Amino acid sequence: MFYCPWMRILVTGGAGMVGVRLAERLARDGVLADRPVGHLALADIVEPSGPVLADFAVDTVVADLAAEGVSGELIADRPDVVFHLAAVVSGAAEADLEEGYRGNLDGTRALFESIRRIGRGYRPRVVFASSIAVFGAPLPEVIGDDQCLTPLTSYGTQKAIAELLLCDYSRRGFLDGVAIRLPTICVRPGRPNRAASGFFSSIIREPLNGEEAVLPVPDDTRHWHASPRSAVSFLLRAAVIDTGVLESRRCLTMPGVSVTVAEQVEALRRVAGDGVVGLIRREPDETIRRIVAGWPRL
Amino acid sequence: MFYCPWMRILVTGGAGMVGVRLAERLARDGVLADRPVGHLALADIVEPSGPVLADFAVDTVVADLAAEGVSGELIADRPDVVFHLAAVVSGAAEADLEEGYRGNLDGTRALFESIRRIGRGYRPRVVFASSIAVFGAPLPEVIGDDQCLTPLTSYGTQKAIAELLLCDYSRRGFLDGVAIRLPTICVRPGRPNRAASGFFSSIIREPLNGEEAVLPVPDDTRHWHASPRSAVSFLLRAAVIDTGVLESRRCLTMPGVSVTVAEQVEALRRVAGDGVVGLIRREPDETIRRIVAGWPRL
Repeated sequence: MFYCPWMRILVTGGAGMVGVRLAERLARDGVLADRPVGHLALADIVEPSGPVLADFAVDTVVADLAAEGVSGELIADRPDVVFHLAAVVSGAAEADLEEGYRGNLDGTRALFESIRRIGRGYRPRVVFASSIAVFGAPLPEVIGDDQCLTPLTSYGTQKAIAELLLCDYSRRGFLDGVAIRLPTICVRPGRPNRAASGFFSSIIREPLNGEEAVLPVPDDTRHWHASPRSAVSFLLRAAVIDTGVLESRRCLTMPGVSVTVAEQVEALRRVAGDGVVGLIRREPDETIRRIVAGWPRL
Repeated sequence: MFYCPWMRILVTGGAGMVGVRLAERLARDGVLADRPVGHLALADIVEPSGPVLADFAVDTVVADLAAEGVSGELIADRPDVVFHLAAVVSGAAEADLEEGYRGNLDGTRALFESIRRIGRGYRPRVVFASSIAVFGAPLPEVIGDDQCLTPLTSYGTQKAIAELLLCDYSRRGFLDGVAIRLPTICVRPGRPNRAASGFFSSIIREPLNGEEAVLPVPDDTRHWHASPRSAVSFLLRAAVIDTGVLESRRCLTMPGVSVTVAEQVEALRRVAGDGVVGLIRREPDETIRRIVAGWPRL
């Protein structure tokens, strides 16, 4: 097969918070796996907010991965590495069952099927952004690599199913997959999204911007966070590791920082003072409390 | 909602070995969950080999669960209990990726979706025949309830995905599911099927019928078996247990008898003599050996 020294990369969910940061990091590095990046395609259902300035070609594709024919077009260029970040987030997948399964299950399956159908030795590295939502209470205090998957949300169910597909398609030689289970990303920049975990970022971000933030869970809620920068590093590392050592267990749980909401609030107080902390309004939401209570804490 | 004292039951895969035995047992018992059986529908892609004689109405439906509209028709009568046994067996799902995903993933999802779409409080007990193929080596000597799912076949992957769907649809209140992970059923009566585990039965059944049987794995291969009668009892029990005590963990691994192939052969020798054992021909098959090596042993 023709070997091109230039690395071609596809990012689904390329307009999302992690996707944009991943693109910016690739633009800055200019290389991946010791090969110069030649082309980067950013696919998402919306246009990325700004252009990515890079020494290589960057294309944006506005399309829905689960729609007929879309994944085939994205894969037609045979990218060497696919970062599959596109997802219907947890709150939205819980609110709309059909939309969640369509985006998170059908979209992922369509992507993997398009890769398989290319055939002729094509076997890209696929880095899949999974989530610690694949785990569900009751859980041990420390989550090991052999923790069984008992998701308590439709989002977590869909991520767990996608992990199973990734492993089966890898085992059969259609792709070379690695699933990275990301902790909650905190502090997320930008505007709130519909993730049930969104408040973990809101209670820091909005008060620092002089805006009110709603805290829907008790202060003693403990959770597990990684920064946006760490998330990008996890994904880039997954793109270059030797998957031979993983054998059939290709789903990796990433480390994070475990804190209570009270500890987050006290950290904000130390940095920004009582006035800023006063912008956090406690407004219990039983649905969010229940979703978060089912997630791992550290 | 209108309450009918007569129990209506749907069995998918109703022409299969377990499906037929389940139907015969229901005909004999005449009751399920202390309610008289009023109607039994047996659905399968082929006609059952013989009629089921019962004091209640028995219908057979020849249809493909994954085909457009079929699951909706099967569910239109709102059965109180659905035994979902239909499956593309392990060897066939490994040989034909598309057929396996279509039958085992799309078919199951269509069934669950049809149940969900009825709505209006309809929430049948769904007993799903899963498999110990959801587990994959390396495994501990004893499989606990918290064993993580690492299937090493497409069949096991599809069963694991169906389990996740069953749990999510149960959690959301669309159905009341229980997944029963059956060990390999041995001795299976009838003709060989395309299950990779088929030889465990063939090496007993064919020689007893005076026919040659092929043994594709080494004699020290250890595996885990349940009789057809036990399988039926597991499924019937799952139809009546209080699922409240299961909480979110609705997938149950069934007990079995753990033996090596050599022990099976010696048991056959004790019962039927050297001449019958001589009909077992050793013909190593690396594909089957590898599939079986990935399964739990006890």
